[in-house]
Amino acid sequence: MKLNCDLGESFGRWQMADEAAVMPYIDMANVACGFHAGDPLTILRTLELAVHDGVQVGAHPAYPDLVGFGRRSMQCTADEVRAMVLYQVGALQGLCTAVGTRVTYVKPHGALYHDMLRDESVLRAILSAIASYAADLPLMLMATPEAGEHRRLAAEYGVGILLEAFADRRYTPEGRLVPRGEKGAVLHGRGQILQQVREIAAGSVTASDGRQYPLAADTLCVHGDNPEGVATIVEIRRELG
Amino acid sequence: MKLNCDLGESFGRWQMADEAAVMPYIDMANVACGFHAGDPLTILRTLELAVHDGVQVGAHPAYPDLVGFGRRSMQCTADEVRAMVLYQVGALQGLCTAVGTRVTYVKPHGALYHDMLRDESVLRAILSAIASYAADLPLMLMATPEAGEHRRLAAEYGVGILLEAFADRRYTPEGRLVPRGEKGAVLHGRGQILQQVREIAAGSVTASDGRQYPLAADTLCVHGDNPEGVATIVEIRRELG
Amino acid sequence: MKLNCDLGESFGRWQMADEAAVMPYIDMANVACGFHAGDPLTILRTLELAVHDGVQVGAHPAYPDLVGFGRRSMQCTADEVRAMVLYQVGALQGLCTAVGTRVTYVKPHGALYHDMLRDESVLRAILSAIASYAADLPLMLMATPEAGEHRRLAAEYGVGILLEAFADRRYTPEGRLVPRGEKGAVLHGRGQILQQVREIAAGSVTASDGRQYPLAADTLCVHGDNPEGVATIVEIRRELG
Amino acid sequence: MKLNCDLGESFGRWQMADEAAVMPYIDMANVACGFHAGDPLTILRTLELAVHDGVQVGAHPAYPDLVGFGRRSMQCTADEVRAMVLYQVGALQGLCTAVGTRVTYVKPHGALYHDMLRDESVLRAILSAIASYAADLPLMLMATPEAGEHRRLAAEYGVGILLEAFADRRYTPEGRLVPRGEKGAVLHGRGQILQQVREIAAGSVTASDGRQYPLAADTLCVHGDNPEGVATIVEIRRELG
Repeated sequence: MKLNCDLGESFGRWQMADEAAVMPYIDMANVACGFHAGDPLTILRTLELAVHDGVQVGAHPAYPDLVGFGRRSMQCTADEVRAMVLYQVGALQGLCTAVGTRVTYVKPHGALYHDMLRDESVLRAILSAIASYAADLPLMLMATPEAGEHRRLAAEYGVGILLEAFADRRYTPEGRLVPRGEKGAVLHGRGQILQQVREIAAGSVTASDGRQYPLAADTLCVHGDNPEGVATIVEIRRELG
Repeated sequence: MKLNCDLGESFGRWQMADEAAVMPYIDMANVACGFHAGDPLTILRTLELAVHDGVQVGAHPAYPDLVGFGRRSMQCTADEVRAMVLYQVGALQGLCTAVGTRVTYVKPHGALYHDMLRDESVLRAILSAIASYAADLPLMLMATPEAGEHRRLAAEYGVGILLEAFADRRYTPEGRLVPRGEKGAVLHGRGQILQQVREIAAGSVTASDGRQYPLAADTLCVHGDNPEGVATIVEIRRELG
Repeated sequence: MKLNCDLGESFGRWQMADEAAVMPYIDMANVACGFHAGDPLTILRTLELAVHDGVQVGAHPAYPDLVGFGRRSMQCTADEVRAMVLYQVGALQGLCTAVGTRVTYVKPHGALYHDMLRDESVLRAILSAIASYAADLPLMLMATPEAGEHRRLAAEYGVGILLEAFADRRYTPEGRLVPRGEKGAVLHGRGQILQQVREIAAGSVTASDGRQYPLAADTLCVHGDNPEGVATIVEIRRELG
Repeated sequence: MKLNCDLGESFGRWQMADEAAVMPYIDMANVACGFHAGDPLTILRTLELAVHDGVQVGAHPAYPDLVGFGRRSMQCTADEVRAMVLYQVGALQGLCTAVGTRVTYVKPHGALYHDMLRDESVLRAILSAIASYAADLPLMLMATPEAGEHRRLAAEYGVGILLEAFADRRYTPEGRLVPRGEKGAVLHGRGQILQQVREIAAGSVTASDGRQYPLAADTLCVHGDNPEGVATIVEIRRELG
């Protein structure tokens, strides 16, 4: 069970995370590509850390929206989405080459990630970009009841998928995240989180109705943009070995 | 004698050149990479044309300055320049891959081009970027009396150079461009320009003192951002065969 | 019946319209404020022309999206919309002050305009911005069957409205625009357009069913971003006197 | 002796300073205007705090360079500088109006500030902007041996000046700052800083040669972008009463 974490999200003088503290404990860094965060030099520093700690690099492309940190949906055409993904994955690969590593997967960021999950045309635009860039890069997306459908769709483009689960979010019996804002949506306390990590690593999760359900995930998404998150990552790493 | 031309310089709804009219007559397209011009979709359309017409693609990286079209010098550190070149060359390569072509050389744009010619630290930052990305990409720069020095410096990084000359600019006896603003700096009339093209193709140029001097150039820079420029390109192409 | 036209939509080296050709024939210039188009110097040049030709200036604020020219809807919060309108109206007023004129109304641009018409929270955010800036600036929006409702809502904020109609778009019997893409949505030929101008000036319009319906409008929107549009403006002006 | 501090320098999700902790202890907030930092909503929140704590608002315009935080000199024309200052001062005034306050002075930021001090054409462009916007807004700049000359130049435009000194920087006997990088350029320790504050408040400063020299300053620049800086501000405020 690999740990993936969003990084490279500083911008110029603005710092986002203590990346040197996080990097040694994760397996996969989803690195910002300049559209929601990450200027070229910021990204390069993140990649140097990733190489130092043997962490796999993934591209984390987003809508062009620095003010909104890529979290505001933008009504882009499929052609626009496809081109912006190609541009960002390529830009990151350019910096990767300079430090002797490479992009190994693609995980869209923020609103682009969520739009991809609810709008097939966005998902297809992203898959088309990956297929025409390098079909051996899997697309990382959320483990949901639609995982099989997503896998079939990706296969149409010759692209594989990686399913990610969340250590600190409560799941519904249907295998979806309890929406933020609803009671119990976010797990608090290390005990709860580590318990869920153990369960997911074993292929199941205790849902909001208190019962266990199967949950197939390739990787666990963790958050390194605050000290509490970093401490949790360290404990999850210890738990998973 | 190859013709190179700056392209991909539209941005969103703003159009710059009639690229379909220019592309059939040139050999090398210096394609904007998003920092001074060129959004991802604009760039992709330019690359599709380049592939259609068998035109070689070069990266045309710039300072991050859309309002100034990359023509305003910015006091960046060598690390910033190196990272921004890597980012832009990679981004363009990402889009190239999708249309089945590749970046084959690097020609900095605007103020970055001029800063490179007058400040060795900028030139070194660019060479360092190219060397760590793909040393087989030559750097295109202006044919000047410093060409030998530039070649030696590039060789330190294992990088080759391409020297470009200008069809419509008058040269001094020393082999520099007569500064814009000075009398006779720009050649007017097709006759004058075609005469200079023939001379440069043969390895020399009639300078501002009326005498011939040798001028070694690998490529000729032409301008496609106005109808007059496009018509001139067509004639130059006819001249060169 | 005043003519209003979107202007100030160049950006740096990219030109949009021949503003000097348009300005003498219009009454109200909706001037871009930098978020979808219009850098500070471009805007200043437009304002100088407006002052020269005695044209009223309106603010034309937009979502922050240069690549998309403000035409892509962005999921912003009401607080974000309110703040971005205040920022843009203020910026334009800053430039207006320098040339001795002032912002006299607000007309949102592109996707912000359309979002305002279909989402009351966006309309309220814009009205709240105007009310807290200068309630004597009317909001310009499309004359639709909801005009009465819009007027009441604006009055809640102490803000007036200006209703605009379109010279070159066919109306439905309900008083809406025939959607672009549907047959007959756009009027072609000067004769048709001038006929519709005369009708609207007299308070009615011949709808898609061939019958006349009342249409109350304060101003007519015309387009100056292409030579055909400019020629049409000149004829409309002649028609209206 | 008033305390002025750069604020409004967050951007979207990126936070810069604990503004609520700083605001009660300062007199004048130099508020970012969106070009080097400060999106519209960020700025509005800063202005609300300023109003709450009765702090005077100044415009802090900059070169358009988010990645470089406005600290990289850009080769702009005088017309470009004039227009960008008008745009930014106006934008800030737009947001000020909404919260019931106003811009009361202008202090250029970063590279624009330093370019203004060493290049008269930049200073004149800024003064021209202020004069055509509202000549009753003084320009804040560094107290240097050129203060008299700056005052005369500003007077040509009908603009006043405010001279600022630095609590934590060592001065030369000539009344300039000891350049960063040179030994002793920055004062460390509260004792040293408070001693210098007392001296400046009384009209003099102990220079790098250990002797006292007169230093006329209207305001003291303090830094709130780190916890140490905030603690120092609190002490300086206590010292000054």
